[in-house]
Amino acid sequence: MIHQSHIVARYAETDMMGVIHHSVYPIWAEVARTEQMQSTGFTYSEAESSGIMLPVTDIRFQYKAPIFYENKVVINCAITQLDNRRVKIDYEICVDDKVCCIGYTKHIFMNASTRKSMRLDNEVLEKFKKNCHPDFEKLSS
Amino acid sequence: MIHQSHIVARYAETDMMGVIHHSVYPIWAEVARTEQMQSTGFTYSEAESSGIMLPVTDIRFQYKAPIFYENKVVINCAITQLDNRRVKIDYEICVDDKVCCIGYTKHIFMNASTRKSMRLDNEVLEKFKKNCHPDFEKLSS
Amino acid sequence: MIHQSHIVARYAETDMMGVIHHSVYPIWAEVARTEQMQSTGFTYSEAESSGIMLPVTDIRFQYKAPIFYENKVVINCAITQLDNRRVKIDYEICVDDKVCCIGYTKHIFMNASTRKSMRLDNEVLEKFKKNCHPDFEKLSS
Amino acid sequence: MIHQSHIVARYAETDMMGVIHHSVYPIWAEVARTEQMQSTGFTYSEAESSGIMLPVTDIRFQYKAPIFYENKVVINCAITQLDNRRVKIDYEICVDDKVCCIGYTKHIFMNASTRKSMRLDNEVLEKFKKNCHPDFEKLSS
Repeated sequence: MIHQSHIVARYAETDMMGVIHHSVYPIWAEVARTEQMQSTGFTYSEAESSGIMLPVTDIRFQYKAPIFYENKVVINCAITQLDNRRVKIDYEICVDDKVCCIGYTKHIFMNASTRKSMRLDNEVLEKFKKNCHPDFEKLSS
Repeated sequence: MIHQSHIVARYAETDMMGVIHHSVYPIWAEVARTEQMQSTGFTYSEAESSGIMLPVTDIRFQYKAPIFYENKVVINCAITQLDNRRVKIDYEICVDDKVCCIGYTKHIFMNASTRKSMRLDNEVLEKFKKNCHPDFEKLSS
Repeated sequence: MIHQSHIVARYAETDMMGVIHHSVYPIWAEVARTEQMQSTGFTYSEAESSGIMLPVTDIRFQYKAPIFYENKVVINCAITQLDNRRVKIDYEICVDDKVCCIGYTKHIFMNASTRKSMRLDNEVLEKFKKNCHPDFEKLSS
Repeated sequence: MIHQSHIVARYAETDMMGVIHHSVYPIWAEVARTEQMQSTGFTYSEAESSGIMLPVTDIRFQYKAPIFYENKVVINCAITQLDNRRVKIDYEICVDDKVCCIGYTKHIFMNASTRKSMRLDNEVLEKFKKNCHPDFEKLSS
């Protein structure tokens, strides 16, 4: 399933070039995957309190067109790679149907107590699978 | 003692008005009080790991002149009110000897485990006293 | 009129104390006044492109209870002081009907070309008046 | 030439996992390339006021170890690809000689007035060449 999030670009997110600063897009991607997880009924807050963290190990974002203050931004995202150790999520960030940015984030599953990488058990893995859509991959690495 | 910190304004901290965004000044104030504590040999990291947190309860900042990208910023700060329950720190944020912003932050001492307010013991209180300079108060509340 | 905005607290907005960092609240206040202006049919983007800027001259925020990741935040705001040179906006930031933070921002009207303070003409002033609600004042200065 | 920058990790840059948030590293990379340009006697502020902007078109960061509040961070950076239309800069972000993150940013040269891509004249290109060090490339794309 491809999940769709809606964000309005904030003034504080602009820079002196008059556009949204490039470091904001990874934050928007994080908002999108937060909502993506909420939609499965297993929130990221719940994941953390059940002892699973998803630290970011790799990000890539390609910027194709600027985004401006008060623009209505649509973020499409889907899990494009998944096993019980790691997940890759791809993003497409759009304004008015124009793709302004594509990107991905990669995460490992980490035990919140030991801070070591862990294997997800099958029950939790199934919850993540709902958001899988391998064809959505935008950028390989 | 008045502590002096030096910061260079970052591009990411500018906004579309071409100046440093007002939400950045509280972050610079935090950098200044981090360094102020380091200078006493009792770092904020050590305070937190010894179980003392200093959550912010009140901030005020008055903006007098804009600050621009790559400006060399000087932040003077001192503790202007202190007892074993709370602390007020005042700040003066300058570029080239011009005062661009004055402000304060107020904090309570909080037990990191219980997340309740606490009384500082006298030994730790003495460490904070080194940074006291009541005459430095810029803004009352 | 009191305007109400809805925000979900972002992961990137948390800090190592496990709560939303205090510097984020002024950004949320800015989101709220952006929406407040949109609701009058005169957006802040339009204000800037018609040559009117509203730089912040003074902010104060008082923090009463922490806000956490994924909390659904409600921001009530209203203009509490207004003339043709300056405006004060008060904010009440809530989670589940609990007031977690109160604050204000003060702005002057500034000519975008000359970057000098200006007097708003009456037609534009009327647009701002729609959002006035002096009784909403939370913090004086 | 490889340029070296020094940054201390800020409290506001941490997140509820207790580490520096991944969206901060692109900002640190920007601080590093700002200082890299300063070291050639041609600052980024001067570039923008002489009509040359360097918008980011592509970023990638790989995270290998967490960075914590008050850590002393060293950022090594060098230009690894350059012609009169575009530049790639690679970064190595370290704490105590441990490489915590590697990454790159790609930029095009853009005319600040027309906001269209431009060719750098040879005189300015020479200034950028001082920071070239192709062997420093950390991540290809």
